[in-house]
This record gives sequence, structure tokens and C-alpha cells, in this order.
Amino acid sequence: MEKKNLITPKKLQGFWELMPKEQILFSSILNKLEEVFKQNCFVPLDTPVLEYSEALLAKSGGDTDKEVYRFTKGSTDMCMRYDLTVPLARFVSMHKEELAFPFKRYQIGKVYRGERPQKGRFREFYQCDADIIGNETLSMVADAECVNLFEKCFNALNLDVEIRVSNRKILSGYIQEIEKEDKTNDILIVLDKLSKIPFEEAVNMLAEIGLTEQQCNNIINLTKTTGSITEINQNLTNFCQNELFQLGLSELQETDKYLQLMGSKAVIYDLSIIRGHNYYTGTVFEAFLKNSEVTSALGGGGRFENLCSYFSDKKMPGVGMSVGVTRLFDLLSKQEGYFDTALANDIDCAIITFDDTFDAGLKLVADLRKEDIKAESFYENKSFKSKMKEANRRQIKYVVIVGEEEVATQQYTLKDMTTSEQEKLSIEKIVEKIKSDRMCK
Amino acid sequence: MEKKNLITPKKLQGFWELMPKEQILFSSILNKLEEVFKQNCFVPLDTPVLEYSEALLAKSGGDTDKEVYRFTKGSTDMCMRYDLTVPLARFVSMHKEELAFPFKRYQIGKVYRGERPQKGRFREFYQCDADIIGNETLSMVADAECVNLFEKCFNALNLDVEIRVSNRKILSGYIQEIEKEDKTNDILIVLDKLSKIPFEEAVNMLAEIGLTEQQCNNIINLTKTTGSITEINQNLTNFCQNELFQLGLSELQETDKYLQLMGSKAVIYDLSIIRGHNYYTGTVFEAFLKNSEVTSALGGGGRFENLCSYFSDKKMPGVGMSVGVTRLFDLLSKQEGYFDTALANDIDCAIITFDDTFDAGLKLVADLRKEDIKAESFYENKSFKSKMKEANRRQIKYVVIVGEEEVATQQYTLKDMTTSEQEKLSIEKIVEKIKSDRMCK
Repeated sequence: MEKKNLITPKKLQGFWELMPKEQILFSSILNKLEEVFKQNCFVPLDTPVLEYSEALLAKSGGDTDKEVYRFTKGSTDMCMRYDLTVPLARFVSMHKEELAFPFKRYQIGKVYRGERPQKGRFREFYQCDADIIGNETLSMVADAECVNLFEKCFNALNLDVEIRVSNRKILSGYIQEIEKEDKTNDILIVLDKLSKIPFEEAVNMLAEIGLTEQQCNNIINLTKTTGSITEINQNLTNFCQNELFQLGLSELQETDKYLQLMGSKAVIYDLSIIRGHNYYTGTVFEAFLKNSEVTSALGGGGRFENLCSYFSDKKMPGVGMSVGVTRLFDLLSKQEGYFDTALANDIDCAIITFDDTFDAGLKLVADLRKEDIKAESFYENKSFKSKMKEANRRQIKYVVIVGEEEVATQQYTLKDMTTSEQEKLSIEKIVEKIKSDRMCK
Repeated sequence: MEKKNLITPKKLQGFWELMPKEQILFSSILNKLEEVFKQNCFVPLDTPVLEYSEALLAKSGGDTDKEVYRFTKGSTDMCMRYDLTVPLARFVSMHKEELAFPFKRYQIGKVYRGERPQKGRFREFYQCDADIIGNETLSMVADAECVNLFEKCFNALNLDVEIRVSNRKILSGYIQEIEKEDKTNDILIVLDKLSKIPFEEAVNMLAEIGLTEQQCNNIINLTKTTGSITEINQNLTNFCQNELFQLGLSELQETDKYLQLMGSKAVIYDLSIIRGHNYYTGTVFEAFLKNSEVTSALGGGGRFENLCSYFSDKKMPGVGMSVGVTRLFDLLSKQEGYFDTALANDIDCAIITFDDTFDAGLKLVADLRKEDIKAESFYENKSFKSKMKEANRRQIKYVVIVGEEEVATQQYTLKDMTTSEQEKLSIEKIVEKIKSDRMCK
């Protein structure tokens, strides 16, 4: 044999790639979320991974420019998308005459950020977004619909979460009231960090921005406001008479009214929810696991004033939500038992044959698959023993033993590998048993 | 308002992007295919879009180099994948100690080719592949399994196709017999074009390669051999005693035996099937629509000797299939009625309210969605009339009218917009009716 220069097979560093068992779980998470989006009348969108740099970078600041995968082919300057929001803006702007508004779309897709890989951060990873875009105006019902949809996503995954909801107008209104409007973003950035930095440090930072001690205390106290909508109202109605503040409060109330009608059960109001992005202008929300060591958010969303400002003079307000599927997968795959119960086993049963029943085994596989049973015959392993060993190695629950007698009588030996119990059954009974087994999972 | 420089929203030329209605159909095609793969015990794989150029271009010839999207970031030379096979080879080579063999994986993903866009050709498009990879050896059962899987894919889409199967060893054996072995690829390339070029031209090309007139006629006649396995045997057993030729013939027979056991019904043998790629070494197959003006193949596949030759000294034979989903979508979306019947309507019913029943309408939407009915209230359109208009414009079959009386009696007016018939029903009856309607589609 000729000696060749072999290339070491390597995956790019920081790129997400799962082994098949993990991939089955991850795909099942995505499928469940997609089902929720469809049930709630969101339509799918699948924009290209590549976009014109001009379009993709119009909105972004300097940081994104550095992180983005950008290159030229021929005379075309292009980028790989770094999120799904800018492509949505491009799509909506291009097709605004044809689309029905409010435009409710979801998109689950990979995005690319060339930053230094670190724990929990990837250069290629999935985003899972749903947004409602209005034409000129958008009712507050949309805000409630997004929060409600977000809750349904976690319900579909059997995760017990709290959706913490706020409205940025409340904090912004207070900042307006104390005449620090021009510093709104700086102040919100500090408040967003409150849970991560020492209290003293936060106070110092706010003082540097120009807040008095009293104002510091007031605004920090304000972010600590949390509870039911009634509690929020009781605590805040007289806190500040600023118009924007009061508008935020009444928007929060309206959101709650719709959420009640929609049957939301996991919502709690919490003014510490700010969301980093400064394009959020009203409702903001995040999801947190209940009774868990994991304290970071599993995604969130909010209302923005104008999706398409860089592409169009027309105002297109929107509200959106994003499930942190990479983090969610990481979490779920480590949860004891979750893998076993959530994971539809990739193989229901192994068909074990002898030399002279090999063909009969193949036919049995075909018959079982026709009944939606994932049956597999290890056709590479010729001997009975090696087939049994393979079934064991793959931790397949059932084996169906196909000997001469079984073929003659059409009664096959079904063995439960977890209990070692076995019985002779017809194909119909085997199908029945495996299917009823599935229901119990 | 400040005047901004607006950017014209544009999509990159030649990149696949669908409007929501079309996307629903396309996604449903992909979902059905994925279901078939899962049912047949194939596991999902989702490799990154970007790979090291060294790995991705190891196998490819010069052409691919020019077409590929290649760029450098930092010191890393990388490419966007142009198919799903090389990433599979990279993955299998990296993980061969951990994977169970035969490794049966499917992958549905976008690939990138920077060629000049033309009708039916895209720079970004989906590939939909399933492959079975062996470790050192791979039984002929795998070939049959791939052909059978391919057939099931089209069955799942309700397409009446013929799967035309051949084995390259037969033609290669004859070429060996006439001592033109070193010209095998050149000859196969001519034979692959037979249906597209005039007979005379083909003869001339074969003569140029060095075949005698008799050999030309013989090999062209050979490619015309088509029929059942019995007919193929009758016609070819004595055609040529070359060992490779006879091996090809017996492999074809073995494939047929397994296909019968698996219940395949759409297979026909046809020696004109060659498949362009010269890495196929045995079984080759393609699918064609029956009774259709579309004469080109809707995908195909075949057996290859070694998937990982550039990454490993270990031999990893495989057999794979690929459904041409872009072409298929193009075809199906033009078929009269297909859109209507295949397309699960994105909205089942519109909830039409009056000013004072708006809230009750929202609750009804929530109740119906809980029962898996895609209900939508057009909350942007405030008046009864504008809501009705919107339902019409979106061609939604049912509207549920929610007036004061309906709210009081919990009996809602369900109107079939296609027949204008209407009746008063409870929520349960509405759910029942819409669901039974779905079953008829």
C-alpha cells in the first residue's frame, strides 16, 4: 500500500459539536421548542448564514466588528451572521409590503462570533428566537404573548421556572425625574450588575455618574422591588410622579392583565431585570430555574422601539424572546435522569439471529420498523454471541431472539435486558409491549 | 426627526431564502425526512459550518478549491463546508474509538459553493444525507438498507418514484476485460452523459479513448440493460466472464435479496446509472419521478470503498444516500394542490371580537391553543370589520365570532369561510370540528 501523508482530523476550536446521543437530546429540545412556536401561530424563517457586511454591521458597534467572521469573495464584502435579529430586520424591510402584520416569526439557527473561546462560550452556537414585529404600532398584547410563549417553552421542556418581568420605562422614568436622562444607559449598566458586584462598588459607580447618596439609595431600592402586580402597584404608585415612570407602571399592569387571560402562571415582577442590550425600551423579562443552584438566566427578551431603523424610515416596533438553548442543553444533560427520560432511545430493540435465521431477522426488522418500532439487526456481527454483546454494549433494553423455532411458530423470544425476563410473543404483541413501555417514559 | 443614511436591505445573490408559507412547506419536507431517518435507527449529526481548510480540502480537486468560501481569521485558515461528506469523514476519524459501527448517521444542513448562481443552483443550499459507515468491512445489507431508506424517503413525501439501481463493478469489470482499466473514469464519464449527448458524439468520444467499434457498441448496449433482477441475470450472466463483472452481478443479486426482505417495491435495475462522483465503487442508485415531465434524478447514492483515506490508515467503507431537497421543494411547490394539502395551515381559526369582547377573545385564543388549535386574534385590528378583512386576506378557513351573547352562553359562532355556513358551538365542539377537519387533509 502506498504511504500517504495523513491529515490529523481536527474540529475548529470553540465550535459546538455533539456526539450522537447528546445530539439526539439537543435535537429533541429544539423540536419541542419549534412545536411551541408553531402552536402559537409563529411562522418559520430561515435566512442565509452569510449577509452583506454593509447590512449586517449597520447596527452594531465596534465590538461586533471585531468578533464577526468577515471576508471578501470576488468584490463582495460579506459576514457570517452574529445573531438572528439583524437578518430579521433585513428580511422584514425587504418584504414589508408582502408580509402580514403583526409578523410573528421564529428562527432557530447557528450564529457566529469569533471571540476567544471560553467556558460556556462558543464561536458557533444556536440561537432560538421568536419575535412579533408591528407595522408602525404594536399592541401591548404582543408583549404578553411573548412572555407567555417564553413560559410555554420551559413548560414544554418540563422545567420549573420563574419568568421575571419588568418594564424599563419605570427605571428610565425615575432617572428622568432626577434629571440624569443623558446618563440613562450608564446608570442601567451599573444597576444590571448589582447582583454581581459589591454594594459599595455600585454606589461608588453611581456617585461617579453624578447621583446623590439619596438618589443612589432610592434607585437601588427601586430595583429591589419584586412581587405580584398588586404588590408592585402598592409599592410604586406614589414613588414617583414622572410620566414615563407611570407609563411603565401602567404598561406592566396591562401586560399582567393579558398574561392572566392567557393563563400564565410562572410570572413574577422584578425591577432588577434590565437586560444588557440598550435597544430594549419597555417590557423586559428573563427566566430562572426554581430551586436550583443555577442562578443565571436561561434566556429572556423584551420590547424594542424600532427593528428596522437602519433600513427604513418606517417605524417597526417589536417584542421578542430568546431561549438560551446551549446553556439549557448543558444544564439538562447534567441533570440526573434527564438524559434517560427525555431521550427517546435511538434503538427500541435488537434482533438477534443465528446463521440460518439471518434473513428472517432482516424481514422482522422491516416489519417492526413499519410499525414505528426502532428495530436494529447487527448485520456486521455474524455470531449470536457477538450480536448479544453489541446489544449489551449499546444498552438496548429489549432483544428479540430469532431461532429456527421462532421462525417456524412466528412467536419470537422477547428478552428484557434490564430484568432478564423473557417471553414468547407474536410481532403484534412485541409492538404493543414496546409501545406501552414508551408511554411510561 | 434626524435624517439618517438608510441602507438598502439586500440578500446575497444566489442564497436560498423562502417566504414564510414556502418555508412551512420546506420545513415539513425536512421534518418528514428526518422522521424516516430516525425510524430506521440513523442518529443525527450536526457538524460546524466552518472547518479547517486543510481538512476540508484534503480530498477535493482544484474545482472545489475555487468554489469554496475560504478565509483566514487570526492565523486560522478555514472554509465553509461545501458538502456534508468530508465533515462526516473528519468526525468519524476523530471519534472512531467511541462510535458504534456500523455508524448510521443522517445530517440535514446547509452547504456553501461560491459558484456563479444560475437557475436551480444556489450558493447556499440544503443537503440531506444519510450514510452507513463500517469499520474495516461493511456488509452488503448496508447497501440494501440505504436503497430501502431512500425509497422510504419518497414514500413519506407521497411521491411515486422508481429507484434505479446498478453496481459499478459490472461496467468496470467489462472495461477491465477489454483492457482499458486505466481509462475507467474517462469511459464512465462518457457513459454517464449518454442520455444528454447524441449517440454519434458518444461513440466518437469512446473511440478517442481507444475503444474499438465493437467495444463501443458492446458497452453502450450494456448500459441499456434494465429490468428486474431476473432479467438482468438472464441478459448478463454470459455477457462477460471477468471476475469483477461477475462480482458486480452477484452483489446486485445480494442487494436485491435483502431489498425483497426489507419490502422494497420501487426498485428497478438499470445499468445506465453511474453517478458522477468517481469515489463510488459498487452499488449506485438514483430516484426518478414516475409519470412526470421531470426527468432528472431527485437524488441518489452509492457505495464507496473508504470514507476516511485522507485522515486514517484504517479502511472505513461506506454507503450513503442524498435526497435533493432543493429540487424536490421546487417541484412540489409547483405541483397543483400540493401546497394546499401538504401545508399544515399556519392558522386554524381567527377569533373575531368586538370592542367589549376583546379580553374574552384573548382567553378563548389561549383555551384553544391549549387544545393544540392554532387560534389567532388580530389584536392590532381593533374593529370587527377589520378583523374579518384580515381573516379573509390570510385565507383562514374558520372564524370564531365572539359577541356578548357568545360570551354569556359560552356558545361561539363558528363560521366556515369557504362555505359561509355558521353554527353555534361550545369550545369542545369547535376543537373537535377543526381536528376532524385536519384528519381529512
